[in-house]
Amino acid sequence: MGKAGSLRAASRLLRHEEAEVRAAATGLFARQRQLPAWVSFPDVEKAEWLNKILAQAWPFFGQFMEKLLVENVAPNIRASNTHLQTFSFTKVDLGEKPLRVLGVKVHTGATKQQILLDLTLSYAGDIQIDVEVKKFFCKAGVKGMQLHGTLRVILEPLLGEAPLVGALSLFFIRRPTLDINWTGMTNLLDIPGLSSMSDSMIMDAIAAFLVLPNRLLVPLVPDLQEAAQLRSPLPRGVVRVHLLAARALSSKDRLMKGLIEGKSDPYALLRVGTQLGTSRVIDNSLNPVWNEIYEFMVHEVPGQELEVELFDKDPDEDDKLGRMKLDFGEVLRARVMDEWFPLQEGGQGQLHLRLEWLTPMADASKLDQVLQRNRWLEPKPEPPSAAILVVYLDRAQELPLKKSSREPNPMVQLSIQDITRQSKVVYNTVSPVWEEAFRFFLHDPSNQDLDVQVKDDGRQGGLGAIAVPLSRLLTAPDLTLDQWFQLDASGPSSRLYMKLVLRVRPGLGGCRGMWEAIGAHGAAVGQVRGL
Amino acid sequence: MGKAGSLRAASRLLRHEEAEVRAAATGLFARQRQLPAWVSFPDVEKAEWLNKILAQAWPFFGQFMEKLLVENVAPNIRASNTHLQTFSFTKVDLGEKPLRVLGVKVHTGATKQQILLDLTLSYAGDIQIDVEVKKFFCKAGVKGMQLHGTLRVILEPLLGEAPLVGALSLFFIRRPTLDINWTGMTNLLDIPGLSSMSDSMIMDAIAAFLVLPNRLLVPLVPDLQEAAQLRSPLPRGVVRVHLLAARALSSKDRLMKGLIEGKSDPYALLRVGTQLGTSRVIDNSLNPVWNEIYEFMVHEVPGQELEVELFDKDPDEDDKLGRMKLDFGEVLRARVMDEWFPLQEGGQGQLHLRLEWLTPMADASKLDQVLQRNRWLEPKPEPPSAAILVVYLDRAQELPLKKSSREPNPMVQLSIQDITRQSKVVYNTVSPVWEEAFRFFLHDPSNQDLDVQVKDDGRQGGLGAIAVPLSRLLTAPDLTLDQWFQLDASGPSSRLYMKLVLRVRPGLGGCRGMWEAIGAHGAAVGQVRGL
Repeated sequence: MGKAGSLRAASRLLRHEEAEVRAAATGLFARQRQLPAWVSFPDVEKAEWLNKILAQAWPFFGQFMEKLLVENVAPNIRASNTHLQTFSFTKVDLGEKPLRVLGVKVHTGATKQQILLDLTLSYAGDIQIDVEVKKFFCKAGVKGMQLHGTLRVILEPLLGEAPLVGALSLFFIRRPTLDINWTGMTNLLDIPGLSSMSDSMIMDAIAAFLVLPNRLLVPLVPDLQEAAQLRSPLPRGVVRVHLLAARALSSKDRLMKGLIEGKSDPYALLRVGTQLGTSRVIDNSLNPVWNEIYEFMVHEVPGQELEVELFDKDPDEDDKLGRMKLDFGEVLRARVMDEWFPLQEGGQGQLHLRLEWLTPMADASKLDQVLQRNRWLEPKPEPPSAAILVVYLDRAQELPLKKSSREPNPMVQLSIQDITRQSKVVYNTVSPVWEEAFRFFLHDPSNQDLDVQVKDDGRQGGLGAIAVPLSRLLTAPDLTLDQWFQLDASGPSSRLYMKLVLRVRPGLGGCRGMWEAIGAHGAAVGQVRGL
Repeated sequence: MGKAGSLRAASRLLRHEEAEVRAAATGLFARQRQLPAWVSFPDVEKAEWLNKILAQAWPFFGQFMEKLLVENVAPNIRASNTHLQTFSFTKVDLGEKPLRVLGVKVHTGATKQQILLDLTLSYAGDIQIDVEVKKFFCKAGVKGMQLHGTLRVILEPLLGEAPLVGALSLFFIRRPTLDINWTGMTNLLDIPGLSSMSDSMIMDAIAAFLVLPNRLLVPLVPDLQEAAQLRSPLPRGVVRVHLLAARALSSKDRLMKGLIEGKSDPYALLRVGTQLGTSRVIDNSLNPVWNEIYEFMVHEVPGQELEVELFDKDPDEDDKLGRMKLDFGEVLRARVMDEWFPLQEGGQGQLHLRLEWLTPMADASKLDQVLQRNRWLEPKPEPPSAAILVVYLDRAQELPLKKSSREPNPMVQLSIQDITRQSKVVYNTVSPVWEEAFRFFLHDPSNQDLDVQVKDDGRQGGLGAIAVPLSRLLTAPDLTLDQWFQLDASGPSSRLYMKLVLRVRPGLGGCRGMWEAIGAHGAAVGQVRGL
């Protein structure tokens, strides 16, 4: 999508509700309108006064960060690895230079219950963090850091009483550029058990921590009911992407082989944040036809993007054939888009996609219809799904003590058929708090179980288990179970608090449906893998 | 103060701490510098994105307002007047048009513990509020309103933990312009007991409610320790204004009397928000000399202004001789200013003022020095004071029930010698909560009492009393008492919670001192009256 495309996108995003409804009804109507002049002036505003506020609040933010690192992060690092039991932060100094806000943009017209703000942030500061691992006489740290990216701030829920906003949610939709000036990193990587790591891996981990689906929640009212929901909201929608075909691609093989006129062997990589799908390779074609279907869970619109990259499959290194990007805000507005998208970034030709926006619903009555239609579908590249399940794993109580009488390090494995997800480990407790969310695509909730295994990390033998037939959700109010579950093969009062939310994918008349089986936390499944 | 003066003022406000210290040390030094070019571009920024947020939050603000009027305001109105016992709000609709922010300015360089924001607000909306007084078959209301003014928002206290800001304080420093379109107001003013009111009186009351010293506090953390302090903070300073002289005033009497060249009979009106002082009249002079001293409590700098108006005393109507304004931020920066200020708004000539910034301190050791110096001062126009007292009247418990056994309507009178202040009335309770603050100037705290009388509004006989010798405060930690006080002439467990804070005015070498005796809630004393 070129400049004209971006402008078109901006125009569409900014249209009023009325126009949106018309556009949805008439399909391509909206795209044929003339662009108003103001579209070329993006609605990102400067806000120097915010920078003055940041400068004044910076020392307090420094205190906050120091407390966070010393009281919360350090114990987790110490518990995570036996070699790091003597880890500590010896200095946390956020420095003099505050974070700067280069631009602010407010998104209107999304749901009425929340306010979406995008802040373009830039930090190039003199932060200094020193760490020490006493046992190995190791000192290392950070001296200086750069970070540039767009932070989304959600004001939600809006309240009819002071302070009008219940909480702030903060996260980067796309990974920010991050540059850290390490000191003594080689010392740190000499420590046994850390030698497999590299500074770029640590950098990746930090950057990923800031990005969707991770969110920082700042409650502004006490006893916020919706805290769990705000930390891990249900997906706003599922976008079905029909990867149909491409045309007039460049012929990379001719360039490789000299004078002989050749073809490419194109395949596509589809990416939405950490969700990733790979198409099959079409040999020897500049006009490949795939007819494949992918589906992605989308949480933030506008903001989250579909990115499709085309490559020429090659025995040694695959060549790039071009790339396109599309904000899901456009798909939400249009509901259905069917377009030839021009390929950018050195590529030529166009990519034919059909995109459909589906809103998962708390309506079990649609399930039979969806299941029946799915029976006629080829599993290409994956078997079709009919619903999504979100599991909020909250906490456990009174887990059994093993003979060693040492307190366990509980973690949970959640499985539905061949898909397994794993919680973090909580160390040295019989009453762990996880507060994690997991997402699953379901082929047939009336016929599947959620299998939960509580394990003691690094040791044999389980701490308890339970199987929940998902058919129970189909008759539950709002398709939701929010309760304590008694554990089997565990202590007499051992129990687990979970909230299970089922949502049925509504049928879209005449369309084939297929679900891409990746939760936000990612796991490799068939041709689709999570980052 | 003309354009040049305003620019000079802006320049001074924006200078850095360093320049400020130099300016204070060298007196007029700072004023002689060349003005940098950017001074002519005021640092008030537009923020359309804030308006988008306001538009989206507007319906929730409407709910908040409706709840506030129906649950809090209506019961107070019903209790305030026997004729209004059937008063109710029948409709509260904030309308479609949201409040707009025309500009934002952040003040830097004040204390490091708070952030000061000024929002230029404009509201011209379709608000609709209907009220009914059933007993008198009276319906009235508001349909449409305009409000324009500058709202100060204080983010305080800043915290080293989420959400970084403990509370928001909101108020107008200067009275906003307010225009209300009443419906059926004549019906309302027909009700017995209301006939003495006018729509402009109601308008004044509403406008005053929004203005300093009234503050709206929005806590962002639970159990905010500083809530009372934030609602009614101690004054940041006391400014002593020497009204010295004026020169080259216009001769209003010549104009009145035709051809004969005459003089004026000038006097000055000094105003700081609701605090007001009036000088004596100098007969028959265009170059009057007053040599009077006034002192004002100042809470908000920059922002609060001294306004001096000169008038020609006339048997029928006094003529204006001109006006000057000065932001106290300038006085704080310079500590001492001694200038001839040009008179604006149709006037001619200059006004000679000397202004001194005094910061009240929690230091009893300075008191003797101040008292000794005060003995040598003429009381002109008021006897000199040596300290200020702030009384936080919080609540009472288990007040006695009278024979009628009807619950009382308790209110409190607080007196120090001939100055008496009065709390609001709380209706039908033996455990009233007032949460009000009162400010007094003291001549000699070692020798004065605070006399507290709890009364039953509109009925004979007291509910309790106590006299607190202010000398107790001189030996208390931080010159503060924060405790329950047992009531005399009351029930066995009747008590009153108050916080008393004393601050001593520090001496400024060689200056005569005199305190203008007006608290923020205003009461007429001598030539000085509160609005």
